[in-house]
Amino acid sequence: MRRFLINQAKGLVDHSRRQHHHKSPSFLSPQPRPLASSPPALSRFFSSTSEMSASDSTSSLPVTLDSINPKVLKCEYAVRGEIVNIAQKLQEDLKTNKDAYPFDEIIYCNIGNPQSLGQLPIKFFREVLALCDHASLLDESETHGLFSTDSIDRAWRILDHIPGRATGAYSHSQGIKGLRDVIAAGIEARDGFPADPNDIFLTDGASPAVTIKTKTLSHRVRVHMMMQLLLSSEKDGILCPIPQYPLYSASIALHGGSLVPYYLDEATGWGLEISDLKKQLEEARSKGISVRALVVINPGNPTGQVLAEENQRDIVNFCKQEGLVLLADEVYQENVYVPDKKFHSFKKVARSLGYGEKDISLVSFQSVSKGYYGECGKRGGYMEVTGFTSDVREQIYKMASVNLCSNISGQILASLVMSPPKPGDDSYDSYMAERDGILSSMAKRAKTLEDALNSLEGVTCNRAEGAMYLFPRINLPQKAIEAAEAEKTAPDAFYCKRLLNATGVVVVPGSGFGQVPGTWHFRCTILPQEDKIPAIVNRLTDFHKSFMDEFRN
Amino acid sequence: MRRFLINQAKGLVDHSRRQHHHKSPSFLSPQPRPLASSPPALSRFFSSTSEMSASDSTSSLPVTLDSINPKVLKCEYAVRGEIVNIAQKLQEDLKTNKDAYPFDEIIYCNIGNPQSLGQLPIKFFREVLALCDHASLLDESETHGLFSTDSIDRAWRILDHIPGRATGAYSHSQGIKGLRDVIAAGIEARDGFPADPNDIFLTDGASPAVTIKTKTLSHRVRVHMMMQLLLSSEKDGILCPIPQYPLYSASIALHGGSLVPYYLDEATGWGLEISDLKKQLEEARSKGISVRALVVINPGNPTGQVLAEENQRDIVNFCKQEGLVLLADEVYQENVYVPDKKFHSFKKVARSLGYGEKDISLVSFQSVSKGYYGECGKRGGYMEVTGFTSDVREQIYKMASVNLCSNISGQILASLVMSPPKPGDDSYDSYMAERDGILSSMAKRAKTLEDALNSLEGVTCNRAEGAMYLFPRINLPQKAIEAAEAEKTAPDAFYCKRLLNATGVVVVPGSGFGQVPGTWHFRCTILPQEDKIPAIVNRLTDFHKSFMDEFRN
Repeated sequence: MRRFLINQAKGLVDHSRRQHHHKSPSFLSPQPRPLASSPPALSRFFSSTSEMSASDSTSSLPVTLDSINPKVLKCEYAVRGEIVNIAQKLQEDLKTNKDAYPFDEIIYCNIGNPQSLGQLPIKFFREVLALCDHASLLDESETHGLFSTDSIDRAWRILDHIPGRATGAYSHSQGIKGLRDVIAAGIEARDGFPADPNDIFLTDGASPAVTIKTKTLSHRVRVHMMMQLLLSSEKDGILCPIPQYPLYSASIALHGGSLVPYYLDEATGWGLEISDLKKQLEEARSKGISVRALVVINPGNPTGQVLAEENQRDIVNFCKQEGLVLLADEVYQENVYVPDKKFHSFKKVARSLGYGEKDISLVSFQSVSKGYYGECGKRGGYMEVTGFTSDVREQIYKMASVNLCSNISGQILASLVMSPPKPGDDSYDSYMAERDGILSSMAKRAKTLEDALNSLEGVTCNRAEGAMYLFPRINLPQKAIEAAEAEKTAPDAFYCKRLLNATGVVVVPGSGFGQVPGTWHFRCTILPQEDKIPAIVNRLTDFHKSFMDEFRN
Repeated sequence: MRRFLINQAKGLVDHSRRQHHHKSPSFLSPQPRPLASSPPALSRFFSSTSEMSASDSTSSLPVTLDSINPKVLKCEYAVRGEIVNIAQKLQEDLKTNKDAYPFDEIIYCNIGNPQSLGQLPIKFFREVLALCDHASLLDESETHGLFSTDSIDRAWRILDHIPGRATGAYSHSQGIKGLRDVIAAGIEARDGFPADPNDIFLTDGASPAVTIKTKTLSHRVRVHMMMQLLLSSEKDGILCPIPQYPLYSASIALHGGSLVPYYLDEATGWGLEISDLKKQLEEARSKGISVRALVVINPGNPTGQVLAEENQRDIVNFCKQEGLVLLADEVYQENVYVPDKKFHSFKKVARSLGYGEKDISLVSFQSVSKGYYGECGKRGGYMEVTGFTSDVREQIYKMASVNLCSNISGQILASLVMSPPKPGDDSYDSYMAERDGILSSMAKRAKTLEDALNSLEGVTCNRAEGAMYLFPRINLPQKAIEAAEAEKTAPDAFYCKRLLNATGVVVVPGSGFGQVPGTWHFRCTILPQEDKIPAIVNRLTDFHKSFMDEFRN
């Protein structure tokens, strides 16, 4: 049954890669070993006095590629690697010889890392973090001149939640109870349905890296944990959207399961069709795959759509009927930019349909790396786990204490984003100004980039209703596709590399996310600061024009 | 060959558990499902309006214990669970009815969590963290009245290392380059041999939880990563000390490998005999196990010994000759309490033997949770990876970006502990006073507890040369062993439970760490503050006396 999925999968990726499929079981992995496949680029990051070249594998050292866990080799990131590596090399070179390039800076539109692009942190959040880190400040009178009164109050309240006020101590496996109480209250306020602090796993986790993968990384470890729980072998499958943020495909590969893809419909604004879900589910089952869960990313990554509530109801009913765990990636819940769409949590939708704890298994992921605050460096977030029997919950709890990370600053921040300043608080006005400024600017940037992309020859781009991305489709001329194949590159990767080398703008090829065979896309964030947008639009427009002039049939 | 190891393993654990061995492949796992096996205790932590009892497994929910990944079930923590759960329940009950117990507080001697027991954080470290978290403080004049001048300088220097000074941004997969430079310099100063910033994986990772497991958790995820790299199946084995901190056995079980145990010799102060290493290695190989690595914990956990340099040289030569990766758990490198012992890093020992990058594969783990600072809540630390070919390093780098966590505060703290204030710095005197105060107090507490334990009937205790623990051996009367078996409990767990219920003192049974069959131990930390030590000694002495009176043959 694995072959079936691989064949399925291969269909989704650049057909020019097919000759490699026997080496690349993960359908989002065009190259057999993307990292090993670009040693010159990657070894720059290892350029080390002590480092040996791959040719030294013949040394007396005990560990070789042939002797490591093959799952590690299989766990690939089509979107990691080459383009980002080229960009980082260009950035290095720019320091020394600016004149060699037609641009003077690299603009990273590949990763949802707002503060690296100049977005400032929310002041109230950082005040509270600083006071909790160095609590003796709270005893100093000068502190009142330096910090808002509500940040001081909040810090006191948080420290009261922490046993011994010890922010340097380990906490409960699920996170500090008092902070989980605050988050549960925030969820109740959001949904209008009760939330239980004992359902909250308040943890950071996950990896850094200046690559697209880091986008929702603050829930990476939580996702790994659920995959590890649900996947015993390749006979266990997970329904995942195509296109998708590749965390899911990578995690499924790492844990030896099978990815069961379902398509989002670009023509209807990346709509999620229940009929396609059913079709893929039945096809997988007919091949002997036991499908365990459905992954839904809402708002969408890389596709930026916000699901309609009715669509969400159908999804919940589908999971209920088919006995699937619903894994709801809701890390962009605060990033909605259009008046006609609103975020609804899947838990709210399930409860409003009358489904309770005993009816449906639902995991909702939230992260402090997203939203208007974009605190990627703080590794905070939570998952809300509902509808699991207590014996399975005990296994999840056990996994939490093996796998998860929970730095206390990240826990504090997660509680802050779920309970920001309220009207009347000292910080309220400045907080609201920061928040609305960031969100309205993101909406403006999204619209500007969307319009610019739609004005390009052969490019169509759905609107970014939410999240932080645009995922335009590029209709590449046959000559460009042939040129790409001559370079053994996916046509969209070929386009993105050309774009980078000509403009310094870094975007990610669609083949990293999966796409309908024969269609090509790239993903571009809306995160560069407003003053950079015109330059991006101009560079992109000029590049695309000359690209089309070069390859137009 | 698996059966061989299981049999090996079973020998190590309470023989009263043997009837369960077919269910418990991890030798440190006396119970088939320690968590599930104590639902009443554990479900307290899930006591939740929405929670269902295990009996509801018959509900319509899709996930059951039989349908989850069996490796998750197998990954067990003999030391987690019951005793800590009982302690936490007692702590809850104490709040409401103090009079029901012969003690008025629970004293946690089960976990290396210093700040939870009243140890204060090092002021300089927290000043720098606070300034980096809320960098706009650096522009305020009042700040100079509140913070030491060197903390302000250091914060500026650190922020200069962070691209865009964005402490809320994702960083490089290995951690922020400038901070890795500082750490490499600290390692060079420590060892007198060069260290390469590109060898440093500067990451936190790992899980919280008020259990023994959290002790070296800030390197848990790094250990998982190396195990995941080295273990493809149960035919791959890792040599691990017995007794050992069970992170290793758990990680090996989780990744489906085989644990190859070697004994530490209690009679010679937990000496590590090369002859025993060789014997176990050959025995494993004869069963078809490919042994990939040797784990050494120095200073030892739970055993507290500090290896002699000559012994370390023999270990390095052994790894070199046998082609084993040396996984050096060196998280207690700053916790040495005896004048006749000194910490030497395995890298220093290897280099001083003339072994370079091409001769030996060595991974050294360090953590900010230990040392004199005990910043467990900050999840900081690093691993130094040397002697791997570049293609394998690329796979490690890839794993780092999938698995590891790197909150920037944790990265900053790791750089601070490797470059504390220097003579002449504004903070130097107060820093040294804090540091020496903590370490000399730990040494004093270790000696007091060691003497008290050795004065007990039938108890012998090696000295704590380093780390944070004592691991006394208790010669239990036959009547006590029979009483334990009647309760289907390991005799040492039986003793520890009795101790807890009588005194409120929480220690961990030796069976959680592995021990020579028929010997019984417990692990006790030296971390309670000095004013608590006399009470602990008295309670322990009185309890032990009455326990022996009850069970003496």
